[in-house]
Amino acid sequence: MNFAPLQNDTFLRACRRLATPYTPVWLMRQAGRYLPEYRATRARAGSFMGLATNVDYATEVTLQPIDRYALDAAILFSDILTVPDAMGLGLSFALGEGPRFATPVRDEAAVRALRMPDLEKLRYVFDAVTSIRKALAGRVPLIGFSGSPWTLACYMVEGAGSDDYRLVKTMMYSRPDLMHRILEINADSVAAYLNAQIDAGAQAVMIFDSWGGVLADGAFQEFSLAYTARVLRQLKREHGGDSIPRIVFTKGGGLWLGEMNGLDCEVLGLDWTVNLGRARAAVGGQKALQGNLDPNVLFAQPQQIVAQASKVLHSFGAPHTGAGHGPTHIFNLGHGISQHTPPEHVQVLVETVHEQSRSMRSPPSA
Amino acid sequence: MNFAPLQNDTFLRACRRLATPYTPVWLMRQAGRYLPEYRATRARAGSFMGLATNVDYATEVTLQPIDRYALDAAILFSDILTVPDAMGLGLSFALGEGPRFATPVRDEAAVRALRMPDLEKLRYVFDAVTSIRKALAGRVPLIGFSGSPWTLACYMVEGAGSDDYRLVKTMMYSRPDLMHRILEINADSVAAYLNAQIDAGAQAVMIFDSWGGVLADGAFQEFSLAYTARVLRQLKREHGGDSIPRIVFTKGGGLWLGEMNGLDCEVLGLDWTVNLGRARAAVGGQKALQGNLDPNVLFAQPQQIVAQASKVLHSFGAPHTGAGHGPTHIFNLGHGISQHTPPEHVQVLVETVHEQSRSMRSPPSA
Repeated sequence: MNFAPLQNDTFLRACRRLATPYTPVWLMRQAGRYLPEYRATRARAGSFMGLATNVDYATEVTLQPIDRYALDAAILFSDILTVPDAMGLGLSFALGEGPRFATPVRDEAAVRALRMPDLEKLRYVFDAVTSIRKALAGRVPLIGFSGSPWTLACYMVEGAGSDDYRLVKTMMYSRPDLMHRILEINADSVAAYLNAQIDAGAQAVMIFDSWGGVLADGAFQEFSLAYTARVLRQLKREHGGDSIPRIVFTKGGGLWLGEMNGLDCEVLGLDWTVNLGRARAAVGGQKALQGNLDPNVLFAQPQQIVAQASKVLHSFGAPHTGAGHGPTHIFNLGHGISQHTPPEHVQVLVETVHEQSRSMRSPPSA
Repeated sequence: MNFAPLQNDTFLRACRRLATPYTPVWLMRQAGRYLPEYRATRARAGSFMGLATNVDYATEVTLQPIDRYALDAAILFSDILTVPDAMGLGLSFALGEGPRFATPVRDEAAVRALRMPDLEKLRYVFDAVTSIRKALAGRVPLIGFSGSPWTLACYMVEGAGSDDYRLVKTMMYSRPDLMHRILEINADSVAAYLNAQIDAGAQAVMIFDSWGGVLADGAFQEFSLAYTARVLRQLKREHGGDSIPRIVFTKGGGLWLGEMNGLDCEVLGLDWTVNLGRARAAVGGQKALQGNLDPNVLFAQPQQIVAQASKVLHSFGAPHTGAGHGPTHIFNLGHGISQHTPPEHVQVLVETVHEQSRSMRSPPSA
């Protein structure tokens, strides 16, 4: 495949811990329900999975926020549960509810029957990656993604979202052998899935460990972190001569930043509970950091959005401006953007990050 | 009031960082739906508030787990939302749902109208404290409690539980002046409420900052921690010659342990994400630590419950055995016990904590 040359490399440079003229910004779930144009496409598609599995629709909604805002990266529009769906668990989205699996994995027989999915069943994702990459025409890089092995396991065992993770934790504590088996399969599946996204054109990949933070100390290392590491060990480092940065985001994982710093990845994503300055010190310059504005800030007025975004930029501290590697920051929210966000507030945020981070690199006194 | 002398002071000694022959244990929400005798009383009472507001029922259910297990402390049976209910917000519990307020505090007029409650409206709580203290007859000490100012504010603004805290955080970011006003009133109300519980017979008090962990770094310090500190500043230090230990538990607050160590309290409660050994080092012996088994461990089999409880005991490390103050641990769950817990598993847990912690104090080689 021959794609157009990249015009904005600030995101990829920041992933590689190289200086950039400003702090790049993108938003988790930036293609989503808060945008009226997304809701229009969604209505035409009929259902969420109708949207996610159609290459043209997926391309269209991925580009919508890029057309509207000066974002520095695009992220594939898809769902974190495509992999267990391809394993045959039967994913569906009831209106107004979260995802649900028709056949959750709750007993030994179900675990024994579990297999890595045929990647052909995920062809629609890889086709979407290539289509989006072409449609982007080099404007910004494209991020591919997957749920983490643990996060997929949560949904696979619970069968849906949960507020106490009782079923998955009961299996973990009472039958750790079964849980490890699920996680091995998940890890190898996620690695194959992300490698195929890279082959299809993804220029960076992100692992969403959305539910790692619900685990106890000790259990996190054994049942989440170890399998994220297993994914990372199998990922392609480069494609067509370009290195492919790898981002790991564990929501609620701030206490384990020391251990996560040992992961073989370039970027760690952080939620809003983490102080970026402390995190920067904790990773000792070995990882780029991505985050971490509370998405609820976007419900406040522009003046307050500016103040809070500025606070996040300054909590990270002085930008790296020299040659070679240094501490870098990729601005993002600490979690996905809310469907209730006023779209014009995102404009304020993106402009603020760009302007303020530029001025932090060339202070008036210079 | 003249109460019977205390027969088991391990909990209070551990709160005061004094050596004990074993690690004391109690469980958050230990009087609750997982107990068949609780469900029977609840059925007689007709409703949750019917149970909580009736002195005899509240006494009965508070003592149920004490009769069943060798727990080292009792905790008042009540709800964390009694204070805003007494402010006139109209608390109710729909069957199968969480708490709900009839008149949430969502605009400037509602904030301006907010007042500290008449403590007479909470007389049923103080009467229950005295009744429970009498019924305990000195078997174990009685803990009183309240929600933290921030946690109360979450419910007061949202009007119910929430998964994104959109309304309360929107007010916090867009009208911090209104949020501070609510928190001032809450802090002073909580302080008066806890002081009245102490007067009525509570031998320790605990502040449940159940939702502190949803705040961003910076916002936690400003909107939760500062008001917990405001409560603590107003609390009675002793009653009838006995010092009254104060416990602060912020669910999801592990990243702020350094700041919380500065609170004027004796004990910090920790959820299961925190490593007790690291926490012990972080507080430098200035606080007793309470926690932190994942309640989901109680769904596993006895052998695994023993192993996980042992892991928590050993993560805290060597017990303090000398004279004077030293690092102490109060065993608890990292959150309230689940209604689905098999009661016989709690027996296993309590016995394990007592036996293993005794043997940690007198190893076979000694």
